[in-house]
Amino acid sequence: MTDANFILKGNICYSRDISRFQTYEKSYIICERGISRGVFDVIPEQYKTFPLFDCGEQLIIPGFTDLHVHAPQFPFRGLGMDMELLDWLNTNTFPEEARYGDEVYARQMYGKFVNELKRGGTTRACIFATVHIPATKILMELMEESGLISYVGKVNMDRNSPDYLREESAECSAEDTRKWIEETGGRYRFTKPILTPRFTPSCTDELMRRLGELQKEYQLPVQSHLSENYQEIDWVKELCPAAAFYGDAYDMFGLFGRGPCTIMAHCVHSTEAEQKRMKENGVFIAHCPESNMNLASGVAPVKKYLAEGQRVGLGSDVAGGSTTSIFRAMSLAIQASKLRWRLKDETVNPLTAQETFYMATRGGGEFFGKVGSLETGYEFDALVIDDSAWDIPGRYTVGERVERMIYLADERCIRAKYVAGRKCSV
Amino acid sequence: MTDANFILKGNICYSRDISRFQTYEKSYIICERGISRGVFDVIPEQYKTFPLFDCGEQLIIPGFTDLHVHAPQFPFRGLGMDMELLDWLNTNTFPEEARYGDEVYARQMYGKFVNELKRGGTTRACIFATVHIPATKILMELMEESGLISYVGKVNMDRNSPDYLREESAECSAEDTRKWIEETGGRYRFTKPILTPRFTPSCTDELMRRLGELQKEYQLPVQSHLSENYQEIDWVKELCPAAAFYGDAYDMFGLFGRGPCTIMAHCVHSTEAEQKRMKENGVFIAHCPESNMNLASGVAPVKKYLAEGQRVGLGSDVAGGSTTSIFRAMSLAIQASKLRWRLKDETVNPLTAQETFYMATRGGGEFFGKVGSLETGYEFDALVIDDSAWDIPGRYTVGERVERMIYLADERCIRAKYVAGRKCSV
Repeated sequence: MTDANFILKGNICYSRDISRFQTYEKSYIICERGISRGVFDVIPEQYKTFPLFDCGEQLIIPGFTDLHVHAPQFPFRGLGMDMELLDWLNTNTFPEEARYGDEVYARQMYGKFVNELKRGGTTRACIFATVHIPATKILMELMEESGLISYVGKVNMDRNSPDYLREESAECSAEDTRKWIEETGGRYRFTKPILTPRFTPSCTDELMRRLGELQKEYQLPVQSHLSENYQEIDWVKELCPAAAFYGDAYDMFGLFGRGPCTIMAHCVHSTEAEQKRMKENGVFIAHCPESNMNLASGVAPVKKYLAEGQRVGLGSDVAGGSTTSIFRAMSLAIQASKLRWRLKDETVNPLTAQETFYMATRGGGEFFGKVGSLETGYEFDALVIDDSAWDIPGRYTVGERVERMIYLADERCIRAKYVAGRKCSV
Repeated sequence: MTDANFILKGNICYSRDISRFQTYEKSYIICERGISRGVFDVIPEQYKTFPLFDCGEQLIIPGFTDLHVHAPQFPFRGLGMDMELLDWLNTNTFPEEARYGDEVYARQMYGKFVNELKRGGTTRACIFATVHIPATKILMELMEESGLISYVGKVNMDRNSPDYLREESAECSAEDTRKWIEETGGRYRFTKPILTPRFTPSCTDELMRRLGELQKEYQLPVQSHLSENYQEIDWVKELCPAAAFYGDAYDMFGLFGRGPCTIMAHCVHSTEAEQKRMKENGVFIAHCPESNMNLASGVAPVKKYLAEGQRVGLGSDVAGGSTTSIFRAMSLAIQASKLRWRLKDETVNPLTAQETFYMATRGGGEFFGKVGSLETGYEFDALVIDDSAWDIPGRYTVGERVERMIYLADERCIRAKYVAGRKCSV
């Protein structure tokens, strides 16, 4: 018996489906070897020997997945929020990312980033690093020590980037990436490499082709950006005239779902054809509401994506977003969807609390397998939430308390965090 | 010499004008009898005897004004955010406000509200209570003890409200209000009454007429709601066919600026004629971005209001807003303005950090007189902000640090708070 055999007692909530909470008052949830064995009114006989932790009045919910976050951008979060995407990249992002050529700097700043993730509600994350392999390995080491489960990507960029950050050639970029995959692919228990072409404007066709080959060879997942900003989309049209739409510029190189598990961040302005391809290919959409507000990109029609069976999770997208908090991403997702409905398009309804909670937990968690729920058979990622600072005992249902949590909680409310059954420090 | 004579040393920032920060590195700001005597590189001879408090690397900024907040709605903040205004009032707000007929409940819940205000960055506030006079007096007592400076309004409502909350008649409502003004008008040092017709749908013409008389007799300021929601606006057209526009329904009774200092919350959908009248009458607009998102009301064209010389401050509008934090109101004001620009109307540019900081400080502060700046002659409302949790020493200017504060700060960063020179506990 490992420490991943135990029982929590508390007020439990997870997503029954996209639009409904499943809630249990003062019930027992069993974790056996890191897997949920379900929720019970009384402890079943076969689990009676497991240690019981009584969480009292607290809430027990699934851990959050952050499907899209840039670790090296953490130091300047909240700065330069008066630009759109392309100016912001050149002015704020690229100069900062260049600093990660320095391993001492990387260790210091990635340390701060990882500490912030540890304190928050995130149990799983898909993370962009920079082009630098030593710094990316440092980030992977730090993530591994945190106990959180993550994919970390060495970024590829061989065009339209400043000299100080651009990789020498498609060949160098791909060969470095191969070397990095070889070194890190089997090295960690909780931390895996993910192919990370920055976005189409930063990667030549030749680089994309080589990354597609690496994908096949190593069977790696992929993460990138898609249809975030109007200028970006126009630019991709110029750069890739053969592509039917932006996403097709990934798909033609085998980097857009189908075989590889793929996350595309944003999808704010995806055309119907692009949406159709995402659905067919099983691409995950990382909805990043704060970033899409801060960079004035717009608001993705997320309710439509969910209704049509797209796979959608939430991303903090630091530093387009200012915070790694998925609580904040949830409330901003709802708020942004309301403004989209009111200001632009009344055919796509606002998101509900339930839908947003789904995206933060099961929607993003699915990228990691059976993750993001507390129902039987799911990996036991859980948060114990103390909402006593604002709850009025006895007044609200568990579901109403979870709804209020979306707006009112931050990392201070997290009393315990479990990742695949392991208790992690917060 | 009182304790309101002192000097702070630190990194100082206030609004030079609507669009620019005025910043000073490691400088001295003098507070004499509660009034700023300006910022200096070296301490002038005549102030050398004042005690000096060195704030080190910390920021010193003006205190915030919350121009619009509903104290009795604090207990259910974050709940029921899937409705628009009128449904939300009937479902969530009115039943909760009815509880304040119970003084024990009122003392308990108002106590929580006031504690939250004390811990945050707000130094001045304009607060709605409920129709209940005993509970409103309790709120005034608690605000007085907090040391913050505020206007508190007993709410008037004599129509279109549930029986359990509606006042018996226009006469009863007005006479109760007179009694409350007599009892509280001169009673407190920091807490004053303000006339508070809930909004036009809740008040008969007769009640408005009587409140207009009370305004003249006691020379009180006024606060209410204006042009928040489309259904509300249509309803006012039906209820007040004689009014040229919604705001005119207040103006015809002398409750819309001119003489009385007046705050109108929201002004999301104000027509050009209404905007013109607000400008002529010197009405203060309380911009409440979170509430306007949560209730899917829309986004006020705030940049236009500022450019045209309207008086604009920020309101948390709890519980349309979920938090009393004016930090959050600032970041959401910027974010909402970007979505308005992107989704609806590119003729009104997004708000900048500087403009939003201006609204949070000088814009709203002006309702209280020379408040909301640290320049010479202003009342000394100040916050000492510790941004060391995210600052990178030596990298950013004071202005950049204030910009980042807007996105990243919460009440934990506030190391000291001064209201008219008095140090208040946080």
